Amino acid sequence: MQIRQSQGVTAPEGFRAAGLHCGIKKSRSPDLALIVSDVAGPIAGVFTQNRVVAAPVQLNRLHLKHHQGRAIVVNSGNANACTGPQGFAAAHAMAAAVAQALSIPLHQVFVGSTGVIGRPLPIDRIKRHIPHLIARLTRRGSIQAARAILTTDLKPKTVVVRGLIDGTAITIGGIAKGSGMIHPHMATMLAFLTTDAAVEPLSLQRALRSVVNRTFNCITVDGDTSTNDMVLCLANGMARNRTIRAGTRQYRKFEELLGEASDRLALAICQDGEGVTKVVKIEVRGASTVAAAKRVASTVATSNLVKTALFGEDANWGRVMAAIGRAGVPINPDNITVCFDSIVMVKKGMGTGPIAEQKIAQVFRQPQFTISIDLGEGQAQAHMWTTDLSYEYIRINASYRS
Amino acid sequence: MQIRQSQGVTAPEGFRAAGLHCGIKKSRSPDLALIVSDVAGPIAGVFTQNRVVAAPVQLNRLHLKHHQGRAIVVNSGNANACTGPQGFAAAHAMAAAVAQALSIPLHQVFVGSTGVIGRPLPIDRIKRHIPHLIARLTRRGSIQAARAILTTDLKPKTVVVRGLIDGTAITIGGIAKGSGMIHPHMATMLAFLTTDAAVEPLSLQRALRSVVNRTFNCITVDGDTSTNDMVLCLANGMARNRTIRAGTRQYRKFEELLGEASDRLALAICQDGEGVTKVVKIEVRGASTVAAAKRVASTVATSNLVKTALFGEDANWGRVMAAIGRAGVPINPDNITVCFDSIVMVKKGMGTGPIAEQKIAQVFRQPQFTISIDLGEGQAQAHMWTTDLSYEYIRINASYRS
Repeated sequence: MQIRQSQGVTAPEGFRAAGLHCGIKKSRSPDLALIVSDVAGPIAGVFTQNRVVAAPVQLNRLHLKHHQGRAIVVNSGNANACTGPQGFAAAHAMAAAVAQALSIPLHQVFVGSTGVIGRPLPIDRIKRHIPHLIARLTRRGSIQAARAILTTDLKPKTVVVRGLIDGTAITIGGIAKGSGMIHPHMATMLAFLTTDAAVEPLSLQRALRSVVNRTFNCITVDGDTSTNDMVLCLANGMARNRTIRAGTRQYRKFEELLGEASDRLALAICQDGEGVTKVVKIEVRGASTVAAAKRVASTVATSNLVKTALFGEDANWGRVMAAIGRAGVPINPDNITVCFDSIVMVKKGMGTGPIAEQKIAQVFRQPQFTISIDLGEGQAQAHMWTTDLSYEYIRINASYRS
Repeated sequence: MQIRQSQGVTAPEGFRAAGLHCGIKKSRSPDLALIVSDVAGPIAGVFTQNRVVAAPVQLNRLHLKHHQGRAIVVNSGNANACTGPQGFAAAHAMAAAVAQALSIPLHQVFVGSTGVIGRPLPIDRIKRHIPHLIARLTRRGSIQAARAILTTDLKPKTVVVRGLIDGTAITIGGIAKGSGMIHPHMATMLAFLTTDAAVEPLSLQRALRSVVNRTFNCITVDGDTSTNDMVLCLANGMARNRTIRAGTRQYRKFEELLGEASDRLALAICQDGEGVTKVVKIEVRGASTVAAAKRVASTVATSNLVKTALFGEDANWGRVMAAIGRAGVPINPDNITVCFDSIVMVKKGMGTGPIAEQKIAQVFRQPQFTISIDLGEGQAQAHMWTTDLSYEYIRINASYRS
């Protein structure tokens, strides 16, 4: 019973969450979320590589040095970025209000913000609502929190993954907020993961870093992030398993479960991207190095010409070839193979000739498919998720008021 | 009299041109162009940096070693790219047909192609029409040639610049074909320049390279080009000026005139970009190096979030700051100033507060304006032209059939 309602970040033992409207967004949509663990535990974080860093990211980097977390408070509707010393003070005040109300150390509170850049954060409204938010914390509150962190997303995104480690059942839960077009350079991506597993702090950080690199970073492209991007993972140890340490079998199992949770959230972000009608995996094989494979995958994945062709359901492999060619990676066009799912479009750098329209239509009719590229240079591979670029994307982003 | 009709590549002494429909495009639009000089002369060329190089570019690189040109034949509707050895043979056959019909050496004929990638070039149709094309060559044919090289462009783009060098009147003419969204990664950019000036071959190459870097490459971003991009400049010496050599005052004057012609074609390409309603100059100052300035300018210029905000007439400086931050260049956000024309939006990395809607509306009402960014790090600067990203762009590129 209550299984659906205890999804997300409140699925693991000992977590409560809540969300409400505090008045940042003009609409009546929820815009303030809180996740709290019954006990403090190790927390790991991966943050934006952008040189313009929002205040909450600056604050979290400081708090992370203590490796201990208990609460995560997040607002939507305002990014608290490019807001100077006042912005930092506001992020600090937001954490302090939670710390005080919960009687916990300040450094155990982590902060997230997403929304418009450059407007002062209405910190008074936030502070005024912290007691209400705490009063509403429940074991079924994940969905409210998941809704309160959204901006242009259509749907809340939550995940739960369960597994056994040394015979002990552990649970990982998560909520996320999408990154616009799922593109580098695009709007903020936030993900908050909770788990009742007991994990040694640095091992937790290591697992999160590794998992983010092969999941969330495959939709936002390494390093190319917004001012506010963050992924946090709070582990409260209430599952009472033996503490997991890097290098062990238990660690590999934990990393696998964390990877599954992250992968599902990343895919949900793609599927809910602005104006998205299709999610396409760009798979690059046969590269001489992993870096080269990544570069080709991300160049194809972020090409507006490729993305509009996907929207137009046009198997335009010429645009794929042109993107491969300008990725800045040494390639020999004559070695390249390109497939749309199982249909070979390019062999030895040349078109394989007219393909039956019906076969192409079958591929495009799917909400999800793969463009695989073999560079024929070596053994390295990488992948990247992308989406089509639609009218709806323009509508959303041209009218999202600054 | 006839001044309007002798614009473009036929404006300089001794050049004729023509354009016609040979049957590559499904529509009845012209798709084959020819430019011929009465006498051979030095020719310079700058080509795509893409690793996937179309057959005509491969051929031209070989012909360019002779430094002598007399004819340029160009088709639209088919890029002759990713077409393998047959594609190269087709480009060669296209040049050979012109060389034979005009009784000139093969290496004096240069070839351009633009259109869909990966389809075999219908070389027989082209060859069949070469005699008709030659029969139609006139001193007023530039506009026909300008029309025959277009793909999704709305308008033919031509330019004429005249000047005195050592008291001798010289003329530079040009036609161009746009690059989709005027974006890196975007469709093909072709420009053909003619001049009656006498210029020493290597000096002509040097002048063209320098001019392309600060004009066409500021709209297509260095190195990030299509499989077919090319700029050619043919100088037939019929103005009878003393041969211009690099390092002289005459050379600087010639480079200035060539720069003006290229600048005007580049801007015309922007204005005619797919679905474009606005052309915006991204000006970066105060960078520590020119490379850093270029990188920041191109990151802002190619951000879909910035481009949709321009379309939405939203002075969203937050998106500009986020793009600056992810350009991969060391910056200190606290030193940054951002202006929309003369309106200071960001000072010391922070918003300057609410700007009167009316002032913003005035900036956006213009078809052309400037976003200037001062990084406050050093003395280097660079600029890049960009455009808005509109519904119309999606429509054109989703329906441009592969």
